[in-house]
Amino acid sequence: MDSLYTIRKKYKPNLPKQLDNFTTLSFEKKTDQIHPAENLREFLPHLFDLHEVSLVAEKLSKPAKPLNIGVVFSGGPASGGHNVIAGIYDALKKLHKDNRLFGFLNGPSGIVSGNYSELSGEIIDEYRNCGGFDMIGTGRTKIESEEQLQHSEQSVRELHLHALIIIGGDDSNTNAAFLADYFIRHNTPVSVIGIPKTIDGDLKNAYIPISFGFDTAAKIYSNIIGNLACDAASAGKYYFFVKMMGRSASHITLECALQTGANHVLIGEEIAFHNKTLKIIVSEIADTICERAKSGKNYGVILIPEGTIEFIKEFSLLIGDLNAILAHENIQEISQENKIQKIANLLPEHSKECFILLPDEIKQQLLMERDPHGNVQVSKIESERLFIMLVTKELHDRKQKNEYSLSFSAQPYFCGYEGRSAYPSNFDAQYCYTLGHIAVLLAKSELTGYMACVTNPAKSVAEWGIGAVPLISMMSLEKRKNKIIPVIAKSLVDLQGPVFQTFLKEREHKKISDNCPNPGPIQFFGPEVLTESITATLMLESKE
Amino acid sequence: MDSLYTIRKKYKPNLPKQLDNFTTLSFEKKTDQIHPAENLREFLPHLFDLHEVSLVAEKLSKPAKPLNIGVVFSGGPASGGHNVIAGIYDALKKLHKDNRLFGFLNGPSGIVSGNYSELSGEIIDEYRNCGGFDMIGTGRTKIESEEQLQHSEQSVRELHLHALIIIGGDDSNTNAAFLADYFIRHNTPVSVIGIPKTIDGDLKNAYIPISFGFDTAAKIYSNIIGNLACDAASAGKYYFFVKMMGRSASHITLECALQTGANHVLIGEEIAFHNKTLKIIVSEIADTICERAKSGKNYGVILIPEGTIEFIKEFSLLIGDLNAILAHENIQEISQENKIQKIANLLPEHSKECFILLPDEIKQQLLMERDPHGNVQVSKIESERLFIMLVTKELHDRKQKNEYSLSFSAQPYFCGYEGRSAYPSNFDAQYCYTLGHIAVLLAKSELTGYMACVTNPAKSVAEWGIGAVPLISMMSLEKRKNKIIPVIAKSLVDLQGPVFQTFLKEREHKKISDNCPNPGPIQFFGPEVLTESITATLMLESKE
Repeated sequence: MDSLYTIRKKYKPNLPKQLDNFTTLSFEKKTDQIHPAENLREFLPHLFDLHEVSLVAEKLSKPAKPLNIGVVFSGGPASGGHNVIAGIYDALKKLHKDNRLFGFLNGPSGIVSGNYSELSGEIIDEYRNCGGFDMIGTGRTKIESEEQLQHSEQSVRELHLHALIIIGGDDSNTNAAFLADYFIRHNTPVSVIGIPKTIDGDLKNAYIPISFGFDTAAKIYSNIIGNLACDAASAGKYYFFVKMMGRSASHITLECALQTGANHVLIGEEIAFHNKTLKIIVSEIADTICERAKSGKNYGVILIPEGTIEFIKEFSLLIGDLNAILAHENIQEISQENKIQKIANLLPEHSKECFILLPDEIKQQLLMERDPHGNVQVSKIESERLFIMLVTKELHDRKQKNEYSLSFSAQPYFCGYEGRSAYPSNFDAQYCYTLGHIAVLLAKSELTGYMACVTNPAKSVAEWGIGAVPLISMMSLEKRKNKIIPVIAKSLVDLQGPVFQTFLKEREHKKISDNCPNPGPIQFFGPEVLTESITATLMLESKE
Repeated sequence: MDSLYTIRKKYKPNLPKQLDNFTTLSFEKKTDQIHPAENLREFLPHLFDLHEVSLVAEKLSKPAKPLNIGVVFSGGPASGGHNVIAGIYDALKKLHKDNRLFGFLNGPSGIVSGNYSELSGEIIDEYRNCGGFDMIGTGRTKIESEEQLQHSEQSVRELHLHALIIIGGDDSNTNAAFLADYFIRHNTPVSVIGIPKTIDGDLKNAYIPISFGFDTAAKIYSNIIGNLACDAASAGKYYFFVKMMGRSASHITLECALQTGANHVLIGEEIAFHNKTLKIIVSEIADTICERAKSGKNYGVILIPEGTIEFIKEFSLLIGDLNAILAHENIQEISQENKIQKIANLLPEHSKECFILLPDEIKQQLLMERDPHGNVQVSKIESERLFIMLVTKELHDRKQKNEYSLSFSAQPYFCGYEGRSAYPSNFDAQYCYTLGHIAVLLAKSELTGYMACVTNPAKSVAEWGIGAVPLISMMSLEKRKNKIIPVIAKSLVDLQGPVFQTFLKEREHKKISDNCPNPGPIQFFGPEVLTESITATLMLESKE
């Protein structure tokens, strides 16, 4: 019997009008060179003099030669990945029936070890418009060492690849740049092409308006938040503290704040900018709860970006101080209570205050569970639970002072993994399918060190523009693990940008009001206003 | 701009053909009396001699008289509640323009306190086909004491109600029966009518094939599980331990097991039947993980019904033993480690074994966090985390014995509140709208102590049958809190029934295979096979 899976597999993503005469198109280098920061030259000498490119109709119809392309997923899944591969496959077959596509298995380690699988039309057809990266798997290996680079070169040479397409986030695309540079240096004529992937939304810059997966994840989380908000209002007796996946940057949280009626929303970048302490953040959440209580509302939804804690400066200081103390003090033999007391006394004043504020469970967790280097593991702290504990205590204190009279109850939630491998929204399905086509044009044009990109994706698919950007033009030097290296900088929320500014305008109203309708589940059929919808983030940033 | 909310509000639920000439229909008592168990007579004397009813076309067209109806939500939200109210409202207006509908606010306490709101067409229109119970709120108050009953009578009399419609689960409908009996005894001519609501699926019997909310919740959870399964397969390195909402019974879990490719599924009723110990359950999960590891799969999804722990007999014994010991021993002054050791030594052998198996965190939790009566709080144990800890330890032990060689990593998940207040599926939207109509026919026919019911809901809506069942015919005596009282028994999973038997047939295959497609998000538009789909549970049980 037909299921969403069987029906969805047959969906035909639209392509931009610019790709109509696909077989006659290629990219051409413009006369203008790009001018990356001079300090990048020593790291990526062979990518330094890349040119801007533009799409052109081929003047002569050159006889097509068969192409071999390799593709790999790198990092966490994001909805639409299979459509990038379907786009590559279909584009390849449009060009020449003998073109071949190889998938490296389980991420970049598949390139290093030469573990691959040829992708036939039958395989591709099983995964069209479906979520996940399970067609070929993914992984987090970075190809960095000389040995890894050599093995990778060997793999692509053995398969006679003309291009290697890397589907990944900021780190994976940084890696792609190094690989491209290495291949040029070794006269390996393989184009390395990047595809912008990440649900976090932090791979975004002047050239890349959006990474794929963000649209689907934000819609899924917003639906869950909408359901929880409605549930909270129905039962009228608890707050949901929802941790939002998205690593450091708060893009996903911000987008979900706009799509839903969440009543209190933490934005990591704002916390850092105003140098807010844990105490202040907790106090502000409690303020919202008390304000709602005055309107008879003892329920609501609070969003907490996954990266919140690392944006709280005093918390970073505390972690540094704890690591320093724990490196010297032997506290194994002391009882739990004395241990906490002893450490507290050893901490400098600013850190002591933050440490004392923490619930005992968290204090213990920080002292007990250290990583192999003996460092405190901040990532183990479940921030949604931390904030519930702290807000519970704060409201208890306010109750003593008659500033709050209701009974506070909270439920922790996590919007996470369920948003990474879902059926892609039509936006992501079409965006990815288009990116796959662009990557093949780059391969055909023998361009390396570029990322495929779509311009004006806020318009209808037919009107999307086709482009490519040298990876190096998005890069800058950063200190990572005590080494200065070129990276594609993570895009953080711009507090002056239109998305955060729109959020600011709505914030006070949403604290109290519950009038925001539930965006509901992603719809694949029906009115275009639903099936072709885009995120508020993309819409607002495209208007600039 | 149009949103799913604005579009969804305009959706017109289908009604069964039997309701086509609605204004000329009523329920008539059949000649046959029902024969409830004799021991119920003393509890509900006035409901004891109720008759079966059948739908008839009214012979004479009696002049319609205006009706006043009150409605209330009782217990946790379930998708479709607003459509019951919309169905009641539309049915009332079909009968007579002067008919009025009142909503009691925040659950049954609104009846007791006379807290209500008249529901106009404008209000109803804002909530058509939308999730949640927020139109009038809900609550868990039980109307039991003589005083509460008196106040309730006063409320319905003041509003000149002809009927009170109670939308709730097994307990709320038990309560409805007592209220109906009380009103008859006091010559209060108000029909009390029940509507079967609960996402748990445990309000189900020979007369009630399904409660509303189950369909939507099961579809939402199955979509999440489908997403997680795909994510697990993509990343290839962790297991999701998913706790499934649904109180004691495992219906939701069983349904989601059929809709998805979850690899290991606990069913509480099966655990109880085979008297499985915690050790055995953990060992079986580890077996699945080791078996998958042999096929190179170090990932998967495991479902854990919310009620699992209470089905493990040795665990109930342990809790009883702990309560007995803690009532007499003073352990406040002893250090944590010694406390655990001391308690362990005091436990009888069978409980000691179970206690020792528990991770320290859980042991401490059991000893520390006791309820106001000093009892251990089992409900505080997060079973998904408990099983992760136990399975981690078991696999660690197997690794020592070279029975497992991979590194085990797990993520806890909870399919819970996000499934209670979502936009109802078309099935729930139409089922609820129909139930509202049936309730009005019962009110018009002046029948009290009945539950509205739809027969053959697995067929297309047009073919659904219309009926009503005396509440007392679903009741039996049970011991609750040391008192023998009549209740509507919770329906547990029938291990001989077609749903569990189908699950059994698929179980071994799904342990290893990952071929089950993701059911995807609920679709409101598009192919009927998607928009009008029903649960596997309903389909299988209807075939019997």
